[in-house]
Order: sequence, then structure tokens, then C-alpha cells
Amino acid sequence: MNILVINAGSSSLKYQLIDIVTEKVIAKGLCERVGSKDSFHKHGIDEDEVVIDTFLPDHKAAIEVVLRSLVEGPRAPIHSVSEIDAVGHRIVQGGAYFNQSVVITPDVKDKILELAELAPLHNLSALQGIKACEEVLPDRLQVAVFDTAFFQTLPPKAYMYPIPYELYQKYGIRKYGAHGTSHRYIASRAAELLGEPLSELKMITCHLGNGCSVSAIDHGVAVDTSMGLTPLDGLMMGTRSGAIDPAIVPFLMDHEGLSTQDVSDLLNKQSGLLGISGISNDMRTVQEAAQEGNERALLAYDMYANSVKKYIGQYMAVMAGVDVIVLTGGIGENSSIIRRLIFAGMQPMGIVVDSSKNEQRGFERLISHDKSKVRIIVVPTNEELMIARDTYALVHKSSQIVPYKG
Amino acid sequence: MNILVINAGSSSLKYQLIDIVTEKVIAKGLCERVGSKDSFHKHGIDEDEVVIDTFLPDHKAAIEVVLRSLVEGPRAPIHSVSEIDAVGHRIVQGGAYFNQSVVITPDVKDKILELAELAPLHNLSALQGIKACEEVLPDRLQVAVFDTAFFQTLPPKAYMYPIPYELYQKYGIRKYGAHGTSHRYIASRAAELLGEPLSELKMITCHLGNGCSVSAIDHGVAVDTSMGLTPLDGLMMGTRSGAIDPAIVPFLMDHEGLSTQDVSDLLNKQSGLLGISGISNDMRTVQEAAQEGNERALLAYDMYANSVKKYIGQYMAVMAGVDVIVLTGGIGENSSIIRRLIFAGMQPMGIVVDSSKNEQRGFERLISHDKSKVRIIVVPTNEELMIARDTYALVHKSSQIVPYKG
Repeated sequence: MNILVINAGSSSLKYQLIDIVTEKVIAKGLCERVGSKDSFHKHGIDEDEVVIDTFLPDHKAAIEVVLRSLVEGPRAPIHSVSEIDAVGHRIVQGGAYFNQSVVITPDVKDKILELAELAPLHNLSALQGIKACEEVLPDRLQVAVFDTAFFQTLPPKAYMYPIPYELYQKYGIRKYGAHGTSHRYIASRAAELLGEPLSELKMITCHLGNGCSVSAIDHGVAVDTSMGLTPLDGLMMGTRSGAIDPAIVPFLMDHEGLSTQDVSDLLNKQSGLLGISGISNDMRTVQEAAQEGNERALLAYDMYANSVKKYIGQYMAVMAGVDVIVLTGGIGENSSIIRRLIFAGMQPMGIVVDSSKNEQRGFERLISHDKSKVRIIVVPTNEELMIARDTYALVHKSSQIVPYKG
Repeated sequence: MNILVINAGSSSLKYQLIDIVTEKVIAKGLCERVGSKDSFHKHGIDEDEVVIDTFLPDHKAAIEVVLRSLVEGPRAPIHSVSEIDAVGHRIVQGGAYFNQSVVITPDVKDKILELAELAPLHNLSALQGIKACEEVLPDRLQVAVFDTAFFQTLPPKAYMYPIPYELYQKYGIRKYGAHGTSHRYIASRAAELLGEPLSELKMITCHLGNGCSVSAIDHGVAVDTSMGLTPLDGLMMGTRSGAIDPAIVPFLMDHEGLSTQDVSDLLNKQSGLLGISGISNDMRTVQEAAQEGNERALLAYDMYANSVKKYIGQYMAVMAGVDVIVLTGGIGENSSIIRRLIFAGMQPMGIVVDSSKNEQRGFERLISHDKSKVRIIVVPTNEELMIARDTYALVHKSSQIVPYKG
């Protein structure tokens, strides 16, 4: 059974076709710069990849190109779109409506549209993707998998902001979190690798990519997370500030003559690693500069690691300790320096990195020292697989669909 | 030797006359609503207090009234202003210029004025207070004690915000902290009470009043604190939000049509306990309502305690543990419920409150359980005494002054 996974960003569309029985990716690719004249389509697995310049005016056009590439040409894994049994769509903002993945109905689409207020670019692109798939695959189940759903278990003391309550009632201003599918995947995968039930572990999961977030998962239930109303909250990131003194926002607007859009752009696109280092939002480039003695680059990664360290402490306090810390994302998987700095000196709290294991490259691996009470594990994330699994589970529950039998 | 301590707020002026040899307060009082027609002056110690309605157009007028009350009438502790040997002034914002208390010179006043950008109401009022004292007591040493000085030991990774570095260079946007004199006092007092040197302890100090802040003091050196560029950062407070997703600021401005001043007022004056409970910024009132079953009041104090708990975890991570947690301020000293909630469930991290000691009223006291690895101590703060001590130390160093000998 083949599940097509669609991840529509504001100007991109990533996809994977997954054979859900073997959990193998049988095709993947992405469309970039959708809506712009220099848009292109990249299709293929690993080395066997082809890039085609093609004008993609919108996400509907992108979906059509994607579907064609799945059935036509030398890299086509299937002969007909009828071999796609269901489609799973990643949706960034599910608000307080969705605490799990759901089959897409007209009502679900209305809610995704309504929630676009909180994630304007992402939810609207996702809706375009859904509509395009519905047209081409009208008899296939479409499933929505929300980035926020995993965090609907947060207690009010964690998700409410201390601002006038009426603003929560009027606009739904609260913490929704993000990267939920990733946190859910790495938590369950870490438990599986350790051979212990997720329901018996206190876990802190760190998704450290270009966007970064940390979650507290207490016996399998998310109890806190660092991203908030928007993905600007929480940790310092590649180009995002994370949480700062909110007084800085009006201060900058007044002193620099910025509009609300300007200040949002400044905090979302010009801050974080890029803002401090002045060099790059990419941790690899920042580290290289730091190693060459660039002081601002050094400061940037010191600040970054400190920011993660503090969240780990917070969530230890929230859960009264931690059994397992899981790291994923470009930085979490690859930067041994940052991992070392995050955990430096935490031995009195039961956290010790094994410095030789930390330096090893590879995939899923334990990097904590044998003497460490807290286990630290690196797990590459796989949101697409999680979306495919959720979609498959809903296909199973549903009687609407007859799986393709080859 | 008598030290006059002046604490000039935006529309208030508090004072104490302290005999620095005995460390006894020999007179105290405050002027309220300075600049408004219903201003008044309260003078006296404990029960023996008198309130006089008197028009105080500015802080200079307030200082004059204060000095008169010290030498005239039944509650006058001294016969002549010449019996005041020096004056210590509390200054809210000392920026990166001052890492300790200093004798006030023209240059110091220029810097206080320059820093008014970062604390407009407070620094300008303090300057008025200084000038008034200089006029009346021209031959007495005037000393500036800064709220921020104690935090000048913070490392860059703690005081920098992840926004474009140029904004730090241009405006000095960084973490300065606040309540420094209080954190310094309770840290040294706690060490004294425990009979251990401050320089050998990892301490977390919590100033929980109407304004609230937490500091990490590692072997006597402040390494982090929750207040930031302004006193809006960090913990949830009586009327302040503390740190929130910065994206909420432009969101509210756009959706509610707020100016930068409006949104600052909203986050500084209508948020925190007041914003969530809708009842009061006073923890006592919020707790009473919660006990009567008011759900928003219950939520407010749950959120508040959670906010403190998370900072304790953060700073444990920063210092790799903690030996002593110190609590002060109206909430820290008096609210046994909040203290219980802050530390609830933290036994695995070595923190256990003794529930019977926690319920006791009184002054300086240990409230941790004998089995608790981390000691928790309640210490009423005394910023005025600290200011008087600093002033005295500078009088000693200075040859400018001949102490009054009675």
C-alpha cells in the first residue's frame, strides 16, 4: 500500500511516496520557489536525482508536476496514480481543534482555513495542496496531520500566556507548539531503540534544525514545549530570536521606526545565529568561523547551547527529572560541539556525555556515558514516515477506500 | 553615624534614616503620588505613623518635606540635617557603566541621565532626588547604588539577546537585570544564616513581590537573572507578563489597533496575575478567590508557580545544581501555597519542602525538609540596609567627609 506524503510550505512542496508495509520510501522530491519564475522541481532518491526547471505558478501546479513524475519517466515508481492509496498532508497549525490526525472533510478544511490567521503562509499553502490532490485523486482518502496536535495534552498552566485572559478568548492566543510530528516520532523511536515503553519514561526531545524546539514528554504525554503561539517562541534558532524581553519589540519599533511587519521580519529572519554571528544562519558555517577565532561566531554558538541547556533544566523541573534526552535535526544530529556544550558540567544532575561516542558520526545512537543516569540518544527524525503511518491507520479505520492491490 | 537612604520611584519617594553602627532604622516614611494634587507624606515607624496630605509638585519638594520631618515635630529622630552623614540613592538603571556602588560625581549624573533611555521614569526621578539632596546637604557624600550593578558579572552568553548584534552596539540592548540590591542582600544574608561562605555555595535567589525575578548566583557571582533589558522580562508577575512569544506583540498591535505605548502598557500593567485572574494583581486576593473556587484565579496561581519552578530548573542547569534556594518579597515570604506549588514533586531533584515549616509564619527561616539536599530559606529582603552599608563603605574610603559625632 502506497501513501503519498505532502508537506506544503509557503513557497515549497516536499513529498514522499512510501510503501507503508515495508516503510520504504519509493519516491521523493520537492518543488521550490513555487509562485516565482525561477521555480524548479527536484525528484529522485539520494544520488539518483534530477532537477527540472519548470514554472510552478501555485501549489496546484506543483502537485500536478509531482504526480506526473510519479507515473512518467525513468524514475517513476508506479504506473498509475491509482496506485496511490491515500494522501497524508502535513498541516502546521491545527489550533485547539485537532489533538490527532484526521480524515479531511469539508469541515476540516474550513477549520484549517480559519486557523490560517495563526499560520498564514503555511495553512493556505496546505489547503491548496489538499484541493489539488482531491481533484486528481477524488476517491482517495486525504488525511491531515497537524504539527500542533501532539501538544494538545499540555495543561493550561503550560499553554496559557500571562496576558489578559480576554485575548485568549478572543483570538485563541496560547501556546500551540510546533514540530509535533517530529517530537512524537523521535520520542517513540527512542523508546523503541531503548527497548522500554514510552509510557514509563520521562523524556526531553530536542528538535534542533533551522527551526528549533524542545518538548517535555512525561510518560508519553507532552506536558510542555518551547514553541508557542508561533514558531518564534522558545529557543534561539538559525534566524529566529526565540523568546526575548517583549519590551524589546516596541523599543525597536520606536527607535528604528519599524512597522509590525518589519519587526516580525527582524525577529524571524535576521536574528538568532545569523543576527549574532553576522555570518550565517547555518551552524556549520558559524562553527567554522568560531574555530578560526571569530568572536561573534563563538558567542553565537555559546548562546545557542546555553539556550538549549536552560530548556533542559526547565523541563527537568517540570517533570521532576528526566530519563532520556533525545536529539534530532541538522544541529542535534551533526554538531558534536553543540551537544558537548549543551551538556557540559551537568554531571551533578546525572547527565554525562561520552565524549568518544559524541564524536562518532552515524545514525541512531546513544551518546551518553555508561555512568550517566540520564540517557542521551541521537535519532534522525522522520516526519514523513509518521504522517504515512497516521494516514495508514486512518485508511484502516475507514471503509471509504479499497486499497490498491497491484 | 546616620545614613539617609532615598528610593525615588516614578511618582513616589521612600526613605529610611539608618544608624549604620547599630543598623537600626531610626526614621522612615514615603511620599506618594508626587506630582499629583492628592500627594501625601507618610512618616514614622510601625504603629507610630502619621499621614500628612501635602502637595508635592516634584521630587525636590518631596525631599524637602522629608528632611523637615527628620528634624521637626514629635517623630523627628535628629535635631539638625547636619546629623545626616551621607545619602545613599537607589538607582534602577546603571547600564554597563556601573558594576558597583559609587560616589556621585557630575560624570555619574551624566551617565544616569544617559541611561534614562532604558528606565525613563525611574532614572529621571532619581536624578531629581539626588539634586535636591545636593542642594540641602552640599557637604555630604551622595552615593548611587544601582539595581543592575550586581548583574554586571553575567557572562555574554547570559546577557546577550539573539537579535542582530548591531542593535546591541547601537542601543545597548542586552540583559541588565533588576532587583540586584535585593538579590545581593538575601544571598549574603542566607549564607550568614547558614554559617557558610557565599563563595562556596550555588544559590538561586527568588525575589517574588509585585515585581518578580530569579537569579543564579554561582559561588557568590551572579551568572544569570530573569529580568532583562527591562523589568518586563522573565517571570510572570502581578501585572506584568514576563517573557512571552515576542510574535504576540505585533499580533496584538495589528489585531487590537494598539500603539507601541499601548502594547507596553498592556504587558506591563494589565497582564500577569491580574490579566489571568481578572481580579487582582495581589496574590493574597487571587488566592482567596481561588479558594472560593474561582477557576481563573486558580489558573493564575498555577501559572505563577510553574513560571518560578521553570526558572529554578533553568538555573540548576546553568550552575549544574543548587545548594540553597532563597525566597523573599511579599509572595516569597508569605504565600505558603505558592511555595508548596513551586517545589511540588521536585524530590527527585533533591528539593523537599518541610510542609509544617512551610506553614509557619515568621521572619528568616529554613523551610526545607531535613532530608532535602537543597536547602530552602525565606529571608525578608532589606534593600535599604544594603544601600546604607554600601554608602557607609564609600564614606569610609572617602576623605571628603567628617562624620557627625553628636
